[in-house]
Amino acid sequence: MTNPAPLHPVDPERDLTISRLIRAPRASVWRAWADPRRLEQWWLPAPATCRVEELELWPGGAFETRMSDDGREFGPHISGCILVAEPEERLVFTNALTGGWRPAQGFMTAVMTFEAVPEGTIYSARVLHGTRVDRDLHAEAGFAEGWGTVLGQLAEQLEGRTD
Amino acid sequence: MTNPAPLHPVDPERDLTISRLIRAPRASVWRAWADPRRLEQWWLPAPATCRVEELELWPGGAFETRMSDDGREFGPHISGCILVAEPEERLVFTNALTGGWRPAQGFMTAVMTFEAVPEGTIYSARVLHGTRVDRDLHAEAGFAEGWGTVLGQLAEQLEGRTD
Repeated sequence: MTNPAPLHPVDPERDLTISRLIRAPRASVWRAWADPRRLEQWWLPAPATCRVEELELWPGGAFETRMSDDGREFGPHISGCILVAEPEERLVFTNALTGGWRPAQGFMTAVMTFEAVPEGTIYSARVLHGTRVDRDLHAEAGFAEGWGTVLGQLAEQLEGRTD
Repeated sequence: MTNPAPLHPVDPERDLTISRLIRAPRASVWRAWADPRRLEQWWLPAPATCRVEELELWPGGAFETRMSDDGREFGPHISGCILVAEPEERLVFTNALTGGWRPAQGFMTAVMTFEAVPEGTIYSARVLHGTRVDRDLHAEAGFAEGWGTVLGQLAEQLEGRTD
């Protein structure tokens, strides 16, 4: 299959971005994404807990996570579709589609890239929205805090320390 | 990159399908899709005319066509995103995203497959919708007639005859 396109330039009106150095090898960062049991450990800000229902890491695969405040009852979190899964390189999903590329009512596409550097891995996430309104709503709903927190949890999980 | 998933089973509540034998080799059918000048010749029911603005045949590529009733002024037709482009095998696009996977207000994903048979190529299109309502609206808007007409035009173009 033809390789995916390079990323379009960031659109500051419609995109949100976050980036963080993780002091762990790229293979470990990828594994923290690709293994549902590991992903559950960091994908939602504690004390909320996460259940990974579907994680089909191929184009058209289903990606579904559920969340719980009490660890017993789980409600909807993300219901989306994997668009690109290049191990250790790039992962793209959207909630504007569900598994098998079926259209849905989602509002974002997330592009995660993993860059090996001497200190570990730079984990960069770029989230695309259809409109500036959707971007602003996502920002006001706490994008920076939420994604920042879970990247901190990922770092903690992989670096074996709390910071 | 990992190969895309096999197709999920057809969901008769939410999908529309159409299939036609084209008496031409699969390579020719693919070329009629991959070459913007050829695609323009059959992608809209005559006498409407088509202009292919973007046809980036890779995951995340832009797919945009415009239509005209008089051949002079062109209005919107499809503004979408290529999800899968496997030459001579399969092409998937959606209008729920635009180029670079940006979310949009579209309602369908189209999966086209090309199967070589002794008589030529079986061109199958499956169109997925998010809900039964969207499927029914598309059906009532003339899916079968529209897609049937343009597949007839494609056959005409490739078979060198009018039928």
